[in-house]
Amino acid sequence: MTIITIAIDAMGGDFGPSVTIPAALIVLKNHPDIRLVLVGDAATLEQELASHTYDVNRLEVLHASQQVEMDEMPSSALRTKKDSSMRVAINLVKEGKAQACVSAGNTGALMATARFVLKTLPGVDRPAIISTFPTIDPDKNIRVLDLGANVDSTAEHLVQFAVMGSVLTSALDNIPQPKIYLLNIGEEEIKGNEQVKQTAALLSNSKVVNYVGFIEADRLHFGEADVIVCDGFVGNVALKTTEGVARFITRLMKESFMRNLFTKMIGLLVKPVLKTFVKRIDPGRYNGATFIGLNGTVVKSHGAANTRAFVCAIEEAMIGAEKNVPERIRHEVEHLLKIS
Amino acid sequence: MTIITIAIDAMGGDFGPSVTIPAALIVLKNHPDIRLVLVGDAATLEQELASHTYDVNRLEVLHASQQVEMDEMPSSALRTKKDSSMRVAINLVKEGKAQACVSAGNTGALMATARFVLKTLPGVDRPAIISTFPTIDPDKNIRVLDLGANVDSTAEHLVQFAVMGSVLTSALDNIPQPKIYLLNIGEEEIKGNEQVKQTAALLSNSKVVNYVGFIEADRLHFGEADVIVCDGFVGNVALKTTEGVARFITRLMKESFMRNLFTKMIGLLVKPVLKTFVKRIDPGRYNGATFIGLNGTVVKSHGAANTRAFVCAIEEAMIGAEKNVPERIRHEVEHLLKIS
Repeated sequence: MTIITIAIDAMGGDFGPSVTIPAALIVLKNHPDIRLVLVGDAATLEQELASHTYDVNRLEVLHASQQVEMDEMPSSALRTKKDSSMRVAINLVKEGKAQACVSAGNTGALMATARFVLKTLPGVDRPAIISTFPTIDPDKNIRVLDLGANVDSTAEHLVQFAVMGSVLTSALDNIPQPKIYLLNIGEEEIKGNEQVKQTAALLSNSKVVNYVGFIEADRLHFGEADVIVCDGFVGNVALKTTEGVARFITRLMKESFMRNLFTKMIGLLVKPVLKTFVKRIDPGRYNGATFIGLNGTVVKSHGAANTRAFVCAIEEAMIGAEKNVPERIRHEVEHLLKIS
Repeated sequence: MTIITIAIDAMGGDFGPSVTIPAALIVLKNHPDIRLVLVGDAATLEQELASHTYDVNRLEVLHASQQVEMDEMPSSALRTKKDSSMRVAINLVKEGKAQACVSAGNTGALMATARFVLKTLPGVDRPAIISTFPTIDPDKNIRVLDLGANVDSTAEHLVQFAVMGSVLTSALDNIPQPKIYLLNIGEEEIKGNEQVKQTAALLSNSKVVNYVGFIEADRLHFGEADVIVCDGFVGNVALKTTEGVARFITRLMKESFMRNLFTKMIGLLVKPVLKTFVKRIDPGRYNGATFIGLNGTVVKSHGAANTRAFVCAIEEAMIGAEKNVPERIRHEVEHLLKIS
C-alpha cells in the first residue's frame, strides 16, 4: 500500500482550524493509506489537537508563522507571506514531501502562489480551475473549467483546458473517452463569439479529446456532457449564477413555510421528504475545485466550507494524487504538442 | 386618452394563434386604451376569433402570407420571408401604424428583421436585449442587458447598453436614477477581463448614468442593482444558467415528493404552501424581453410562453410604447455623444 501525503493549509478559510482539524481527523480515520501534514501556527494546532486521539504516525503538525488574509491581494501574499500556512503547504508539494495540498484560503493568493512555486506543466500556458456540477442523474456529475483563473483566454488556451479536463475526468471518474463540450449561447455552428468559434474549429480536428460540440448553459445540470469548457470569466459567471439561484430559491421556499403556524407545521412534515433533495443540491458535497495544469495537485475548498465539505476537498486532493493527474496531463499535453 | 396600438405576430412561438389570440383578448379586456393588430394567416386567425366576442373597433386582423420557422436562419428569414407575420408586424411599427410589436418567434430572425426594418437609433451601434430577473424582494426586479444580441462587444457598446438600460428602467419602473452595475467575477477594481475594466473606466467618469461598480453573478437575484450590464455572451450564459438551475431544482423537488404514497400525500399538503413560491419564480411572470436601441419598441416573448406569459409580453410592449422609451433613449444618447 502506497501512502499518500496531503498537506493542509490548516489556517485557511473563514473558520480555520475549527474546521480543518476535525475534517483532517475524519479523513485520517476513513482512509488508512493517507498521511496528513497540518500546516499553520503550531501552538494553536496542537492545542486544538490535544483533546483528540488519532494515529500520530499519520498526522504531523508543521509550523508556519504567517497567514494569508481572505481579502489580501495575491501580489502582496506572494511578496510578504513567504512563511504563510498556504505557502508552506504548497512548498511541501514542490519538495515532494506531499503529493497534494488543500486550502480554503484566498483563491487569488492560492493560485498565484501555486503557480509561482509549482510552475505550470510543460506545454501548458495557464493553469485552470475545474470543479463539479451535480446533475439530475445522481450517479453523474459534470466537470466545468475554467471557473475563474483565466480571463481573455485564447482558443489555444481553451484547447489546453479541454485536454486537461479530459485527462482529469478520465482519471477521477473512470471514463475512457470523456465527452467534451464547449459552452456557447446556441448550438448551431454560426453561434458564439470569436473565442468560441476558433476553439470549436481547433477542437473539431483534435485527435486528443472526444469533442462533441456546443452546449448551452441551461444544460449544466442535465448530464449529456462529461466536461464543459469555457473561458474563466464565463465559467465564473455560470458558477456564481448557480450559487445565487440556489440560494434565492431556497430562501423563497423557507419563507413560504415560515408564514404562519399552519405552514410551519407542514414545514416540519416536509423536512424528511426534502432530505434527499437537500443532500443532492448541497454545495458541500461538491466542495473542492482543482487547480489543473500545475506540477502538483492543489485543491481549493470553499472559504465557508464546514467540516463535512472540507473532508470532500481533502478527498478530491487524495484521488487527484493517487491517480497522478499532473503526470497524466503532462503526458497528454506532450502528445498534443507533437501532433499539432 | 391616447390609444396605443400594438402589432402582434400572431403566428410566432411554439403554439401560435392558440396562445397569441387568447392573450390578445385578455389584454383587450384589461386595457381599454389599447388597440391590437393581429398579423398572420387571416383565415386561421378569423376562424380562431369567431368563437369569441370582443371589441371589434380595437382588434384588427392583418393578413400575412408567410411565417418564419423557429429554426430558420435569420439571413434566410430576411431574404425570403418578406411577407411573414413577423416582418409585417415590424413594418407596422416602422410605418407608425403601431407603437410597438410583440413576437414569440425565432429570436435571431426577429432581431435581424427589427434591425433591418427599424434601424438603430442615432448614436447606438448595436441594439441589445434587456429583461427582468426576479429578486427576493417581491417589489423589486433587476433588469439585465445584453442577454444575447451582441457578442464581442467593445467597452463603448457596453456604455451604450448602460445608458439604454438606465433610460428604460427609469421609464418603466419610475426610478429617477437607476443604480447601474457592471457584471464581473469579483468586486475589486483589479478583477475582470479587458472589456469589463475598460467599460468600468468609461462608466466611472460618466455623467449620464448612475454607475455604482462591479457586481458578481450570485447577486442577480438579491436586489441591490437596478440594472446590470454585460456582454451578450455572458448575459446569455447567466440567463440560461438561471433557467437550468431553476428547472433542475424543481425537478429534484418533484422527484422527492413522488417517491412513495406517504411523500405523495405530503406533496398534496405542501402544494398550497408553495403556491406563492411557485408564483415568484414562475418564468411566465417575467416573460418579455425588450429589444432596446431601435427606432421602435419590439418585445420578444419566450417561444414556449403560455397565454398568461404572452399577456405579460404584450403588457411590456404596451408600457414601453406608452412611456416612449425609444424617444427617451434617442435623447439620452444624443446627450452622451455631446458631452463625450
